[in-house]
Amino acid sequence: MLKDWTAQEKPAQEEIEARLEAARAALAARQMVLKEKKVPVLVLFEGWGTAGKGSVLGKVIKNMDPRFYKTETFSWTAATGARFPFLHKYFVRIPQEGKFSFYDGSWMDEVTKQFARGEMSVDQYRSRLNSIRRFERQLVDNGYLVVKFFFHITKKEQKKRLEQLLEDESTRWRVSKWDKWQNKHYEECLDVFDMYLDATNQFNSPWFFIDSQNKKWAELQVLEILVKNIDTALENIGRSAVVLQNTFPLKRMPLLSEVDLSVKADEATYDEELKKLQTRLAELHNILYLKKIPVIIAYEGWDAAGKGGNIKRVTAALDPRGFEVHPIASPEPAEKSRHYLWRFWNRLPRSGHIAVVDRTWYGRVMVERLEGFCSENDWQRAYNEINEFEKELTDWGAVVVKFWVQIDKETQLERFNERQNTPEKQWKITDEDWRNREKWDQYEVAVNEMLQKTSTEFAPWYILESNDKHYARLKALKILIDVIEKRLKAE
Amino acid sequence: MLKDWTAQEKPAQEEIEARLEAARAALAARQMVLKEKKVPVLVLFEGWGTAGKGSVLGKVIKNMDPRFYKTETFSWTAATGARFPFLHKYFVRIPQEGKFSFYDGSWMDEVTKQFARGEMSVDQYRSRLNSIRRFERQLVDNGYLVVKFFFHITKKEQKKRLEQLLEDESTRWRVSKWDKWQNKHYEECLDVFDMYLDATNQFNSPWFFIDSQNKKWAELQVLEILVKNIDTALENIGRSAVVLQNTFPLKRMPLLSEVDLSVKADEATYDEELKKLQTRLAELHNILYLKKIPVIIAYEGWDAAGKGGNIKRVTAALDPRGFEVHPIASPEPAEKSRHYLWRFWNRLPRSGHIAVVDRTWYGRVMVERLEGFCSENDWQRAYNEINEFEKELTDWGAVVVKFWVQIDKETQLERFNERQNTPEKQWKITDEDWRNREKWDQYEVAVNEMLQKTSTEFAPWYILESNDKHYARLKALKILIDVIEKRLKAE
Repeated sequence: MLKDWTAQEKPAQEEIEARLEAARAALAARQMVLKEKKVPVLVLFEGWGTAGKGSVLGKVIKNMDPRFYKTETFSWTAATGARFPFLHKYFVRIPQEGKFSFYDGSWMDEVTKQFARGEMSVDQYRSRLNSIRRFERQLVDNGYLVVKFFFHITKKEQKKRLEQLLEDESTRWRVSKWDKWQNKHYEECLDVFDMYLDATNQFNSPWFFIDSQNKKWAELQVLEILVKNIDTALENIGRSAVVLQNTFPLKRMPLLSEVDLSVKADEATYDEELKKLQTRLAELHNILYLKKIPVIIAYEGWDAAGKGGNIKRVTAALDPRGFEVHPIASPEPAEKSRHYLWRFWNRLPRSGHIAVVDRTWYGRVMVERLEGFCSENDWQRAYNEINEFEKELTDWGAVVVKFWVQIDKETQLERFNERQNTPEKQWKITDEDWRNREKWDQYEVAVNEMLQKTSTEFAPWYILESNDKHYARLKALKILIDVIEKRLKAE
Repeated sequence: MLKDWTAQEKPAQEEIEARLEAARAALAARQMVLKEKKVPVLVLFEGWGTAGKGSVLGKVIKNMDPRFYKTETFSWTAATGARFPFLHKYFVRIPQEGKFSFYDGSWMDEVTKQFARGEMSVDQYRSRLNSIRRFERQLVDNGYLVVKFFFHITKKEQKKRLEQLLEDESTRWRVSKWDKWQNKHYEECLDVFDMYLDATNQFNSPWFFIDSQNKKWAELQVLEILVKNIDTALENIGRSAVVLQNTFPLKRMPLLSEVDLSVKADEATYDEELKKLQTRLAELHNILYLKKIPVIIAYEGWDAAGKGGNIKRVTAALDPRGFEVHPIASPEPAEKSRHYLWRFWNRLPRSGHIAVVDRTWYGRVMVERLEGFCSENDWQRAYNEINEFEKELTDWGAVVVKFWVQIDKETQLERFNERQNTPEKQWKITDEDWRNREKWDQYEVAVNEMLQKTSTEFAPWYILESNDKHYARLKALKILIDVIEKRLKAE
C-alpha cells in the first residue's frame, strides 16, 4: 500500500505556517478534553532512517503540556529482548487514560529490521504479525486511541541526508548501521515495509503515511491527522467492541459440580511424599534456571480454599533467588487507568525465573464481572483477550500453569467459622469474604464459564480438589513436575 | 484460525431447547429496535457443503417478521459474472436500514471455490481479498452490522451426510459437484478456507465459527451470536469510523482558479471537427462492444456549465442500443436508506456498454457535504471510499472517465439570466440554482479538495473549460477517444 500511495501536494510555505498554528492550537486544546474523557492515546512514529521522526516528534510535543505525555524510545539487543516476551517493553509503557505516549520507533522497526536482514524466520515473522495485530486490537477494543505514522522519503533523499550527516563530525553518531543498510537495500526494505504495513493496517488502527521530504510539512501532516483521529475517538467514547469467538484449541473442563471432592491424601505417607516431590521440583528449578525457561503459576480459587498453604508448599521447594510471589489486590490508580492486563505484564518473571500469582488476570471474568467493575462487553471480550495474553507468554517460551483450588460450600463455612473463632486466624477473614460467600452461586456460573473458555492447550486449567488440603498440595506439586518435565523433554 | 478453533461443548438437549426459546424471543424483540434505530444488518452464511447452512437459515427466519428480512442466494456462472464487477451481485442486494439480508453463501464461497479448484490465479485471488476487505469495511463504516458465520463439520461427518443425501432419490439433487469435490479434497479446502478466514477476519466484521454437527445446536449458536452482535451494534449507533488516508496513486490536479477559461474552439472548423471526432468515437464504440469493455463517463460541473449539451454531443456518436444516460437527482427513499454508492452500483453498464452519469457519487463530497446531508466524518471518509469504488470498476476492466465542466462565476450569471429571460429555457433554472450560486465559494473549496483527492491514475479527472461550450465539447470527445484508444492498445 505504501508503494501505491501518492503524497498530497505540499502547500505553499505561507499556508503551512497558518495551518501549523491552527493545528498546534487544536492539539493543545484537545489535551484537556482527552484528560477529562479519560482517553489514552498511543502514537507510533515509524519510518525510514533519517526521515525525521525524531525531530518532528520534538516539534509535536513542544506544543503540549508535559504533564500529558511521555516519549519513549526502545532498544532491543538480543540480550535484553530475550529476558521478556517480545511485546513486554511496549506493553509496560502504554499510557494511562487521558495521557499520550509517543513511541519513537516501536514494534514495526524491531520486527521489519530483523526480518529484512534475515535475522528472523518467516514463521517467526508471521507469529510476530499475529502478536502485533492482537496487541493493537486489544488496545483499541479497550478504549485506546492508537495512531500509527509512517515517515516516508525516497531513496535519493535518504542518501542525501545520510551523506550530510556523515560529513559532519557532530552529526555522524546519529547515523545507525540500520540506516545505512536501509539505503543500500532500499528496494528490499520497501518491499518488507509495504508488506508489513498492509498486514497491520487494521480497521480501527490504520496506517497514516507522512510525506517527509520537508520537515514543517511533515509536522503539519502529523498534527492534522492526530487532531482528526482524536476527534473521532472522542465521538466514539463508550463504543463497544465486537466480542470475538475463541480461536485457540481448548481442553474440555468438568463443571465444578462434577468435581469429586472426596479425594484424600494418604496421611501416613504425606510428609514423605511432599518432601520427595519438593526435592524433585527443586532439581527442575535448577534446570529451568540454566535453560532460561520462565514459569508462571497462577492460583485462583474460593476464599479459604487453601491457596496460601498450597503456594507455600510450592515455593518451599524453590531457590528464593529464582522466584517471586505476587499477591494481587484491587488495582492501584496507575493500574486501573490502563489496560487491565498491564499490571500483569509488569509482573512477568524474567526468563529462567518463576512467578507465582495469587489471584490473577482472571479477576476480569470473576469479581469484575460480578461486581460490575467493567461492562458486560468488557468481560465477554476478556476470555479471548486472556487467551491471547497467555499465547504471548507460551510463544515466548514460558510454562503457564493455572490452578483452580476447589472446595465445597460447607467446607468453606467450616473454615470461615474456624477462622472467626481462632484469634490468630481472624485477620484472614473479612466482611467481604462473607459477602462473596453469599454470591457463591453467581461465582460458580462465572467460574464454570471461565474454565470452559480459557482452558487452552497451551495454558490449560488444573483443578485442585482441596477439601483435603494435603491432597491439593501433593497434586499441585505433581502437576508442576509433570508439566515442567514435559516442557524440558520438548527442548 | 479455523484449524485451531475448538468448538464449545454442546449443552444437553434440554438446555438447548430452553436457550433456543430465549434466543428466538430475543431476536424477535430486536427486530423492532433495529427498525426504529435504522440499523441495516447483513448476515453471511458460509461453510462446508452439507453443513446445514440452508436449514439453519430456514429456522432462524421462522422467528422473524417477514417484513424485516430477505434471504438471498447467488449463482455465479462465468456468463453472468463477467457482465458485471465481481461485487456487483452482492452490493445491489444489501439491506436497507432497519432490515436484514441473509446471504446463503456469498463472496467467500465464490472466491474460495474458484481458488481451491485452480480456476483463479494467486494474483486475482489477492485482488479479490482486497476487494472483499474494502467492501466489508465500507459497509461497517457506513453503519451496517455485518455478521459472518462459517458452518464447520468434519470430513467424516460431511462424508456421512453426502452418502445419505445421495442414497435417496428425493435428496440427491441437493448435492452439488462442489460439495463432492470438497469432501474428496477436504484437507486442501480446509487450508484454503482457513487462509481466507484469516485474511478477512477484520476488527469490526470478524468471523464466527458454528459447530454444525447438530442442527439445533447450530441454530442456537447462530441466534445467540446474532443477538449479541445486534446489541453491540445498537450500543454503537452513531459511532464515527476512522478517516483513512488515500493509498492509491494520485494525479496532480490544478486548482479551479488556475484553469485558463479563455480557451476557444475555432468556429470556422467546429462543425467539421465535431463530426470527425464523433465518427471516430462511433467506430470505437463498436470495438468496445465487441471486446465487451464497459465505459463509465461521469459528468460533474457548475449549474449552467453546459453538461447537458456536452453529453448530447457524446451520445449522438453512440449506438443507442449500447449506452444509457443516468441523470441523478436526490436519492429515493430506497436509495437513501442504503450505502450511498448503492444507487450507482445499480446503474453500472453491462460489459460492452457505456453509461453516462449526469451528476454522480461525488455528490457525497459536494452537495451532501455542504448541505449537511451527511456527517463530516462521512464525507471525509468518502474520498477513499470513492477511490475504492472506482478501483473496483477499473479492476473489472471498465474505462472510467470523469469530467469536471468548468465555467467562471460571471459566465454562470449570464447563462442564468439568459435562461430566466428566455421562455423556452425557463424550466432549466430554479430557485435552487440561485441558492447554490450564493454558495459558489464554499463549493469551490469542496471541488478543489475533491479533484485533489480523487484523481487516481486509474480514474483521473479531466477538466473541460466550458466558457466556450464548443471548446468543451470537442475536448470531451478528444479525451474519450484518446482514453479508449489507449485502453484498446493495452488489450
